[in-house]
Amino acid sequence: MERTIKIADDYSKLQKRICKIIEQADSQGTFEPNSWQNELGYGLTSVMENGLLIEKAGVNFSSVSGIMSADLKKTLQISEKETLRYTATGISSIIHSSNPFIPTIHFNVRFFGLSNGHSWFGGGIDLTPSYIDLGEARNFHAQLKSICDKYDPEYYLRFKIWADEYFYLPHRNETRGIGGIFFDRLAPSSGKESDQILSFTKELAKAYPEIYAEILNNKRNKQYSTYNKTWQKIRRGRYVEFNLLYDRGTRFGIETRGKTESILVSLPAEVIWKYDYQPDKDSDEDNTQKFLRKGIDWLTV
Amino acid sequence: MERTIKIADDYSKLQKRICKIIEQADSQGTFEPNSWQNELGYGLTSVMENGLLIEKAGVNFSSVSGIMSADLKKTLQISEKETLRYTATGISSIIHSSNPFIPTIHFNVRFFGLSNGHSWFGGGIDLTPSYIDLGEARNFHAQLKSICDKYDPEYYLRFKIWADEYFYLPHRNETRGIGGIFFDRLAPSSGKESDQILSFTKELAKAYPEIYAEILNNKRNKQYSTYNKTWQKIRRGRYVEFNLLYDRGTRFGIETRGKTESILVSLPAEVIWKYDYQPDKDSDEDNTQKFLRKGIDWLTV
Repeated sequence: MERTIKIADDYSKLQKRICKIIEQADSQGTFEPNSWQNELGYGLTSVMENGLLIEKAGVNFSSVSGIMSADLKKTLQISEKETLRYTATGISSIIHSSNPFIPTIHFNVRFFGLSNGHSWFGGGIDLTPSYIDLGEARNFHAQLKSICDKYDPEYYLRFKIWADEYFYLPHRNETRGIGGIFFDRLAPSSGKESDQILSFTKELAKAYPEIYAEILNNKRNKQYSTYNKTWQKIRRGRYVEFNLLYDRGTRFGIETRGKTESILVSLPAEVIWKYDYQPDKDSDEDNTQKFLRKGIDWLTV
Repeated sequence: MERTIKIADDYSKLQKRICKIIEQADSQGTFEPNSWQNELGYGLTSVMENGLLIEKAGVNFSSVSGIMSADLKKTLQISEKETLRYTATGISSIIHSSNPFIPTIHFNVRFFGLSNGHSWFGGGIDLTPSYIDLGEARNFHAQLKSICDKYDPEYYLRFKIWADEYFYLPHRNETRGIGGIFFDRLAPSSGKESDQILSFTKELAKAYPEIYAEILNNKRNKQYSTYNKTWQKIRRGRYVEFNLLYDRGTRFGIETRGKTESILVSLPAEVIWKYDYQPDKDSDEDNTQKFLRKGIDWLTV
């Protein structure tokens, strides 16, 4: 419990830091903080809508604890029959930009502790462009790899493959974007001290807004057409499909009657669905679609 | 099997009739037919986009058969261990109009037959306005009741309550719209001959485009503002949430790797998500939201 309070305190500060750096990068939009408190705990949902570059961004922090329900045990695949208390804290964030050439980014870190002494971390960062930019993709994955490598030489590849598997829409046979890293159930028992894993997640939380600020700055003046914007809205339909059909965090939040607006702040501002839309062959849009598959080595692409 | 072929033939004709009547009512848009065939069967997905009044409409017909997988048995709560063949045929349709004062309508009828001799029908019609119109709601429910009453005096109330339960978004504590009727597992054993139930579903399929054509005609010249349109797009976000999070047909289709574009043709053309959007107190939008609950007697409202 004490440990969770410390981690929650660290994560809470990092949530504010994320908002500050993204506000600076946007240069116009501000995050509206919406704090909440209930019988399970407390949280802060910070939302930016209609920034200069950012169309919609949400940064959620929460710290909750309670008795594990049978459903929660089932979801977490915990077979223990006796009553278990849990504590959980984390940050999750999604940023959608107005400019179709600037990708959507998603970030999450979370800590989960049980009264039987088990605890673990989960999280990740991934990028979803409407237009693939290979240089940006290489740089993004290289930045993630360099953080991972400080903690474990196997982390990057393991977590990159995990992201490919997780951020995948089977009904479209498409990945959500160019992936990144994703991990879950990363526990002290797996060879690392819990503090080392905590440091890893904090370093990701620090890197997240910096990585995105760099992307924003690189493309802030890039011109786009109405068609580019329409294509972005179509691609955002896929984002919605992923989040509502598959994303475990979203579905878990909805099923356990979490705060609906905090959970669904991840949804894009504007979305279009056209029946069976196919971009012109070999167009930029078509080329982007061709890259939406698992197993691409983005470091050398 | 023979019976399914006959029902499929009836439904297939009714699918075309729906398209024809809706085309006439729209007066400009046409349905593009997309027929398909695979190892399970065949179907026709007819789609209208950018009609005069209709923004997006899909009318799906399909007729499939195969061996029931363990997953399908589980979904249908069939405990039988032995190998079962099934045949299934049905029509499903959603129409979204451009004018925010014209509601979205949804219709479905389906027949399911098993090799052990069991068979049943399911279906329904329901209406989702962005702006509640009490006269329209009364008339819509009265029309459904009058069809139901021809077959069973208990049908309307039973199926109306079923629709209230089914078209419900627990995470919003809202019904999807003003409901209508919904039924499933309506089997000959429940006191009706199979042919009577078939007639009931066919009568619904006949009424569906006529009911909607009347609504279109009543409101075809009703003026609307940009704000009305924005509100419609926000309400359509709820439609997407329902279809992707809860609708059994959609989820079942996606999970069994059905034809993605045919399944998702139900999604609206344009959608907006704003964080925690609340209309002005006692505005038309607010008043509509107040009516999105179960248990309203729409016949006398």
